[in-house]
Amino acid sequence: MATVKPSLAKGTRDFSPSEMIKRNYIFDTLKAVFKKYGYNEIQTPSFENLTTLTGKYGDEGDKLIFKILNSGDYLTKAPDSLLQDKNSNKLIPHISEKALRYDLTVPFARYVVMHQNDISLPFKRFQVQPVWRADRPQRGRYREFYQCDVDVVGSESLLNEAEFILIYQEAFERFGLKDFNIKINNRKILSGIAEIIGKPELIVDMTVAIDKLDKIGLDGVNKELLERGFTEADLNLLKPIILLEGSNGEKLASLKSILANSSIGLTGIAEIEEVFDYITKLSGDTELLTRIIDLDITLARGLNYYTGCIFEVKTNEVAMGSIGGGGRYDDLTGMFGLKDLTGVGVSFGADRIYDVLEELNLFPANKADSTKLLIINFDKQLETYTLGLLNKLRKENIAVELYAAPVKLKKQMGYADGKGIPYVLLVGDEEVSSGQLSLKDMESGEQVKVTESELIQKLR
Amino acid sequence: MATVKPSLAKGTRDFSPSEMIKRNYIFDTLKAVFKKYGYNEIQTPSFENLTTLTGKYGDEGDKLIFKILNSGDYLTKAPDSLLQDKNSNKLIPHISEKALRYDLTVPFARYVVMHQNDISLPFKRFQVQPVWRADRPQRGRYREFYQCDVDVVGSESLLNEAEFILIYQEAFERFGLKDFNIKINNRKILSGIAEIIGKPELIVDMTVAIDKLDKIGLDGVNKELLERGFTEADLNLLKPIILLEGSNGEKLASLKSILANSSIGLTGIAEIEEVFDYITKLSGDTELLTRIIDLDITLARGLNYYTGCIFEVKTNEVAMGSIGGGGRYDDLTGMFGLKDLTGVGVSFGADRIYDVLEELNLFPANKADSTKLLIINFDKQLETYTLGLLNKLRKENIAVELYAAPVKLKKQMGYADGKGIPYVLLVGDEEVSSGQLSLKDMESGEQVKVTESELIQKLR
Repeated sequence: MATVKPSLAKGTRDFSPSEMIKRNYIFDTLKAVFKKYGYNEIQTPSFENLTTLTGKYGDEGDKLIFKILNSGDYLTKAPDSLLQDKNSNKLIPHISEKALRYDLTVPFARYVVMHQNDISLPFKRFQVQPVWRADRPQRGRYREFYQCDVDVVGSESLLNEAEFILIYQEAFERFGLKDFNIKINNRKILSGIAEIIGKPELIVDMTVAIDKLDKIGLDGVNKELLERGFTEADLNLLKPIILLEGSNGEKLASLKSILANSSIGLTGIAEIEEVFDYITKLSGDTELLTRIIDLDITLARGLNYYTGCIFEVKTNEVAMGSIGGGGRYDDLTGMFGLKDLTGVGVSFGADRIYDVLEELNLFPANKADSTKLLIINFDKQLETYTLGLLNKLRKENIAVELYAAPVKLKKQMGYADGKGIPYVLLVGDEEVSSGQLSLKDMESGEQVKVTESELIQKLR
Repeated sequence: MATVKPSLAKGTRDFSPSEMIKRNYIFDTLKAVFKKYGYNEIQTPSFENLTTLTGKYGDEGDKLIFKILNSGDYLTKAPDSLLQDKNSNKLIPHISEKALRYDLTVPFARYVVMHQNDISLPFKRFQVQPVWRADRPQRGRYREFYQCDVDVVGSESLLNEAEFILIYQEAFERFGLKDFNIKINNRKILSGIAEIIGKPELIVDMTVAIDKLDKIGLDGVNKELLERGFTEADLNLLKPIILLEGSNGEKLASLKSILANSSIGLTGIAEIEEVFDYITKLSGDTELLTRIIDLDITLARGLNYYTGCIFEVKTNEVAMGSIGGGGRYDDLTGMFGLKDLTGVGVSFGADRIYDVLEELNLFPANKADSTKLLIINFDKQLETYTLGLLNKLRKENIAVELYAAPVKLKKQMGYADGKGIPYVLLVGDEEVSSGQLSLKDMESGEQVKVTESELIQKLR
């Protein structure tokens, strides 16, 4: 067998112990918050039938789905003409019937439809699993990454929207973030705006353009609106809406007068008001809305999909894109034949949250997750004592290791250091006979004498 | 978009909330034990370069690896002749450069080689991740399943072998198993046996045959040995070895005399003795060897691979294949150019453990993992009170839900029941004004009056 110089597949990552501790901290924190609000975990398979995924993410999305080659003699059934023409695209369904999960939403929809007789609605689930996309890898963009989604289907109540805001708040506060904003918008407000301008058919063009306000400014947005079929007169109508300022209450008041003649627009406003009311009652904090929530009618994300409230979260402490987002959709499961099931959900960007916590130095000093004590191995003769001690400490459920061979002290200390083990125990003949063991604190360098029971007290 | 009637890809499974709780219980228990013995978690990507995996699992294994089709115009570089001949096998490397993880061992070897400058040896890692195999699905065999591996590389000490036995013991005892056996053998003993028979070159044939003793009996084994090149005289020599009986100590004594002229055989025996000695000292339990360990020289598993001790675990409480296994290997990373790195490790069969715990009814009644209390929603007017109560309970970190709409009581109770929520709170006008809330225990059906603070006490 020829030796292969190993490398990672493009766009993928290994996670070493220190990274796993931090990633698990993020996932465990999110899961604890999700459970607290009544959400239960599910998992779906890593690959689905190709027909389950195709056509759900647009043409561009379809190209980014990783297809799995059929096993065995997969070319047998492939039409000769497609092979001759080297028609890569049309050949796919003949040689591939499975594909890797592209997001957690479509598999969740499939799950709900297939399990509709077992689940009681409303169904509240969270899902934390990797997804795969054949994107060109770049800084911060990987071909394998985790999504953390939390959704409820089968409930129209806006209490759900309010609770998602509180889930965001609680999760990000548990992470130690101090300054973040949850942007909120409503698809119905956007529909109302397109309606009063008299161009309801251009709603997607309108929102795609004004969504870019942050990046390209008002002039850029106007230029794009003109290109997309709006007139100068439309721009004059849109300008005060796009540049809407003030508190959430002031914005709502302005929108009410702007959208006075649009019934869908007023519905959108009423929904936002109800969500705000729920948030205040639920939190008992009359300042919360002002502090963390920002009504932003330029927020559009995934408009083809969302039908009610739309959310997005940004931190103000680090320059970083959104660290979460979501909204309400009214037809999640229609693609699989189960109509009129409304849902709402949000997701957390785990990789970006990781980078934020790293930059702000917010990860807990989590050495306790690993070995707490290394017993130095001076001499095989001493093992009768050290093995017994190992047993006693493990009986107390303390994570402890005996270095497995009596190699040089420097090497053993280097092992403890490399692994971030906080304490090292030095046991020689003298220590065994006196019962006074030498315990070294690896951080301070301090060394003290302890008895076995003092040692157990200290480590427990 | 045409409606697709959804189905799962063959050989894959969804995991619903109740299954996730049980699966997480298994994974969390194993991880806690691994950490206690100084092992740290790593993860590797779901797909690897195809060249990393090909040739590591034999020809049959190569066929069972799921290959990922290249993205874009993947046929461009495919040789015309292979397409014309429909040569599925030879075309693979031209249209696929990535493949799904087939086990955790080869990716771990790649990890160690790629990270050799960052890790301090001995490196103790565990890894709990799914793997994928294009096997024909059947009862208990899936195309996606989790492996739970724990290994140390870079340490020759037999203390590691002994600690793996204790890891098995502690994990299975935590699961509540009362009667299980850890079989142990040593490749060097098998080499010694082949040596004294004078057919060292037939060691693999010999062990493949005697490994089947349980299934086909002595006559079957003898028949197979004859077919594989052994003589009647060899069978006479082998018979007392294959049928070796008695305690571990008696077996070791017999083997010592049988293998007196084989230096490698005696080394194998000495290794087993040292492991046994470590186990007794480490556990402080002189009966442990007799109780759970069984020296079994017919145990062979993965002989091409293991070079020292070999382990396998069976439960005696349920008819089930092995629920764990492992051993020492002396050249894990050689395939990637890093020579002479010895390692030893074991793995746990999570799916089989799941079935065993289910059959023995050993899963903890883990309803606490989910919502503890559902507050019934009688009336939107009462929400001012119930939302405030929700907030108070969540501030105490209690998992609680308010049913999101004032639908019929029966539906709300059905929701609590379906989700396994242990308590339901009934709050009407009378309860609000008296401060005496009605709390129903869903299991016993009992209903009591409680104040808010009594409620918090009860749920905390």
